[in-house]
Amino acid sequence: MSKANLLVAHGGGPTAVINASLAGVLAEAKRQRSVGKIFAARGGIEGVLKGDLIELDLSSADLEKLKRTPASAIGSCRYKVGEQDYETIAGVLRSKGIGYFLYTGGNDSMDTCLKLAEHAPDCLVAGVPKTIDNDLAGTDHSPGYGSAARYIAVSTAELCLDIRALNIQISVLEVMGRNAGWLAASASLARSLDPSFPAMILVPERPFEEAPFLAAAEKRWKEGKGFVVVVSEGLVDSNGNALGAERGKESVDAFGHALPGGAALYLASLIRSKLGLRTRSEKPGLLGRVSRLLVSEIDLEEAELSGIESVKGLCEGKSGFMIGFKRLSSSPYRMEAVRIDLREVANVERKLPPSYIAPDGMDVTPAFADYCRPLIGPDPLRDYWLIRK
Amino acid sequence: MSKANLLVAHGGGPTAVINASLAGVLAEAKRQRSVGKIFAARGGIEGVLKGDLIELDLSSADLEKLKRTPASAIGSCRYKVGEQDYETIAGVLRSKGIGYFLYTGGNDSMDTCLKLAEHAPDCLVAGVPKTIDNDLAGTDHSPGYGSAARYIAVSTAELCLDIRALNIQISVLEVMGRNAGWLAASASLARSLDPSFPAMILVPERPFEEAPFLAAAEKRWKEGKGFVVVVSEGLVDSNGNALGAERGKESVDAFGHALPGGAALYLASLIRSKLGLRTRSEKPGLLGRVSRLLVSEIDLEEAELSGIESVKGLCEGKSGFMIGFKRLSSSPYRMEAVRIDLREVANVERKLPPSYIAPDGMDVTPAFADYCRPLIGPDPLRDYWLIRK
Repeated sequence: MSKANLLVAHGGGPTAVINASLAGVLAEAKRQRSVGKIFAARGGIEGVLKGDLIELDLSSADLEKLKRTPASAIGSCRYKVGEQDYETIAGVLRSKGIGYFLYTGGNDSMDTCLKLAEHAPDCLVAGVPKTIDNDLAGTDHSPGYGSAARYIAVSTAELCLDIRALNIQISVLEVMGRNAGWLAASASLARSLDPSFPAMILVPERPFEEAPFLAAAEKRWKEGKGFVVVVSEGLVDSNGNALGAERGKESVDAFGHALPGGAALYLASLIRSKLGLRTRSEKPGLLGRVSRLLVSEIDLEEAELSGIESVKGLCEGKSGFMIGFKRLSSSPYRMEAVRIDLREVANVERKLPPSYIAPDGMDVTPAFADYCRPLIGPDPLRDYWLIRK
Repeated sequence: MSKANLLVAHGGGPTAVINASLAGVLAEAKRQRSVGKIFAARGGIEGVLKGDLIELDLSSADLEKLKRTPASAIGSCRYKVGEQDYETIAGVLRSKGIGYFLYTGGNDSMDTCLKLAEHAPDCLVAGVPKTIDNDLAGTDHSPGYGSAARYIAVSTAELCLDIRALNIQISVLEVMGRNAGWLAASASLARSLDPSFPAMILVPERPFEEAPFLAAAEKRWKEGKGFVVVVSEGLVDSNGNALGAERGKESVDAFGHALPGGAALYLASLIRSKLGLRTRSEKPGLLGRVSRLLVSEIDLEEAELSGIESVKGLCEGKSGFMIGFKRLSSSPYRMEAVRIDLREVANVERKLPPSYIAPDGMDVTPAFADYCRPLIGPDPLRDYWLIRK
């Protein structure tokens, strides 16, 4: 049986479990007899373009460590691959004897993956899902999301406890998520601790409306002072402009997407100026996608599994697919890994469906919580002792 | 032996371990035969003023839960006690038969404690230390600091990993700490993972100077692009004005202290506008003081111990003291609990000594890391797998 070399690369922002997917790829590649050398690209597709590949042969002990190391151990990038680049990449793959290529990333990366499959017909290509935004199509959810959602659920609950303890101010918590509200919505899982946590959840799927927002904030303050509002960084006004976004060329990424980041600060200022209530904001930002100690064990296992299943698919001769998850049951939670055609995934953004958004547009529904709960693992908010009022 | 009732109250912002101190107080009070009923004030000294006391008699199982519940379970406040209030408080204590009063808080609370000891001579009074800022005088460190420092050390390391993985931008991480840089300084413990983490640490003890800061940022970028700057929220310019602070009456607390909060955003804007480099900011804010899953076990034990020792002191007939910690050895870490006269503590702010600040004012020294390391517990950054460049 002839062997071919394997190459794995990372695309886009890292997550808390992207290295678990990498560990899955490396472990399965070692097991497959059709795989020769195992390479990783340093710094993502830019590393491939430059031929900056390193051979990896990790021991079982190192693979276990890698699994629990947050952020990308091999590096990633946000470079947008141009038409002229695909021939260069195909050339590098040929010269290094690469017959299997795995690209771990989100929507943009899956598009790259698909085009590469067309330009390098001698190489089998698979996408390994990765996004904290949970906006990849064709799959129930994506590795990286469960851990980021757990971080937000726990952080929201703890922030609500802190705000209630002093009860003198409002806090607006800003959560990542460019165009989809999956991550902000996970704040609703804080309600396992107290059904009043948090007061509102604002997602990018619904344009922000000032008057009802301020009315709701004022009402909640009158009911008992301090509370928490969770807002997605990608919240937009009715004209589609990001709330409080800073403008300028440094605020746009390589794909031309605006980089928001001022939504919480904007809402806090709005409440202070229009209602005269003391309001602050918190923005854990990137911390929400790299926290190792808040990783969801379910997410970690599934991330590793997606790496393993991707290599298995390639070694069966399949190409042009991404591993996804099909949910069989929510309680108890059961799912199976499936192969999804990259054409269904590339450049498609999956947003929160209307059934997960409350009618007033300022919260999510219990149906969303039922969807999300199993993904963050066992309830991290058990065993608190609180005075019930 | 005649019994007297005991009252415990919380003052100022909560921490991740303030409930562990409460659990220590409640457990030891149950053991002491001279203690009658055990009361807690709801909502801090405001609860005492209103006579809003609840009797607490927790089981061992509930005490264990309470120990690991972040933020104040009984509530706190930021009310500044006026001269006229002390007689009201003394009256409440008399009417409820309170012979032992414990007040858990920072500098301001210890001042309240001291004055109360003068106004209520029939009640024995003790301060229980609590501050994430670590600025209480007379003690090696204060409960709450070790856990907040662990949060910052871990968060800084993880943010540095994330920034290095993509290597396309700078991040400015804002850390709590009004006038003292102890908490920002703890970011230096991220260097156990990589000595280049983080690039700079800016503390309020040294006024910010724009030119050397920008020169250092530019130099670091040229050496290898992305890096992290850690900044204390209380950073001031040479005129003593908080960097990027929002002004207005909602930005000042009950003690007249300005509430900063814009330092990271300010520095990120400065780097973008003056150097043209892509820069973002993260501000976990209150999340840094309530994270249960990042609690330092050493801090948790010491918080509980400070509650226990406070009750013991009162039951020995002592009054007007705060429990503090005297360090006997850093390696191995050994300390003993001591009683400190409240007059040494009230209203004194302990700042970072010059020996802990680097000569250029943009970092802390290895001596600080030696001081801080034992307080965060076993290195949470062990067992990562990284490609060494």
